[in-house]
Amino acid sequence: ARPRVGYYFSGKTPGSVLAEKLHNIKVGEIKSVPVVVPEQCSVYDAVVTMFIEDVGTLIVVREGGLLEGVISRKDLLKTTLGGQDIHKLPVGVVMTRMPNVITVEPDDSVWLAAKRLITHEVDALPVVRPVRDDAGSLEVVGRLSKTNIARLFVELGEGGG
Amino acid sequence: ARPRVGYYFSGKTPGSVLAEKLHNIKVGEIKSVPVVVPEQCSVYDAVVTMFIEDVGTLIVVREGGLLEGVISRKDLLKTTLGGQDIHKLPVGVVMTRMPNVITVEPDDSVWLAAKRLITHEVDALPVVRPVRDDAGSLEVVGRLSKTNIARLFVELGEGGG
Repeated sequence: ARPRVGYYFSGKTPGSVLAEKLHNIKVGEIKSVPVVVPEQCSVYDAVVTMFIEDVGTLIVVREGGLLEGVISRKDLLKTTLGGQDIHKLPVGVVMTRMPNVITVEPDDSVWLAAKRLITHEVDALPVVRPVRDDAGSLEVVGRLSKTNIARLFVELGEGGG
Repeated sequence: ARPRVGYYFSGKTPGSVLAEKLHNIKVGEIKSVPVVVPEQCSVYDAVVTMFIEDVGTLIVVREGGLLEGVISRKDLLKTTLGGQDIHKLPVGVVMTRMPNVITVEPDDSVWLAAKRLITHEVDALPVVRPVRDDAGSLEVVGRLSKTNIARLFVELGEGGG
């Protein structure tokens, strides 16, 4: 049992305590609600949705909330410059499409999610769960962004254990 | 002296060790190079600069690298939708202007920077140093974004001390 004096002997260096702590926090504990659109949604409506919901990444799904792709603020900015009619252009044409979408699962560590955000240079990841079908479909159950990481960083620095 | 056996008695809970560690890392240690444009730069050229430099926030400066404002991917996306001629529109018209820019200094903690990113809902902060003049000018010496926070998070989770 831990002594109730505000400390205990952990047998670990501060560095390893910190590393272990970061690996023990799960994506499911800090994920946000996903903001989703269908593939037929116009680029214009996608931009409007992004502003209304105040997110930097939209997740594109088909029936059943199954992952089709993702579209970022950067993708949309590039498209608005392209001179196309963004009222007619569907997001399906400009999104990053499966299987090229980087995802994370609720039981993965937040550390792994951060690692994927940095390695793949994206702002957010769809949080998914595999579906039992033959197509390897993924059900979208959340969204994990650099904002979630920064918010967690702030909370961890506020102390507690 | 610390025993050389891979641990020592810190007298602190893991939570407070973690919090202290996060507060001890300074902005100056992890900041990125600032990507700057002058106020007269067109919105179009700003978007191009953002893509070339692959950043989400540009810092607007006047002569001497003094802070005038910031412009985000979100600001630019809103502008491209507005139907104005973005080749003629200067960023000075659409940027967030001083004194409304949230900044951080090199000796501030990364924790404080993360707190400001979250509280003020921005993606990046100019890192500045006060200049000795009567105008309260700030010299831009870096940029600190949610990406820097996520990268630090990954590094801390890799262990070490």
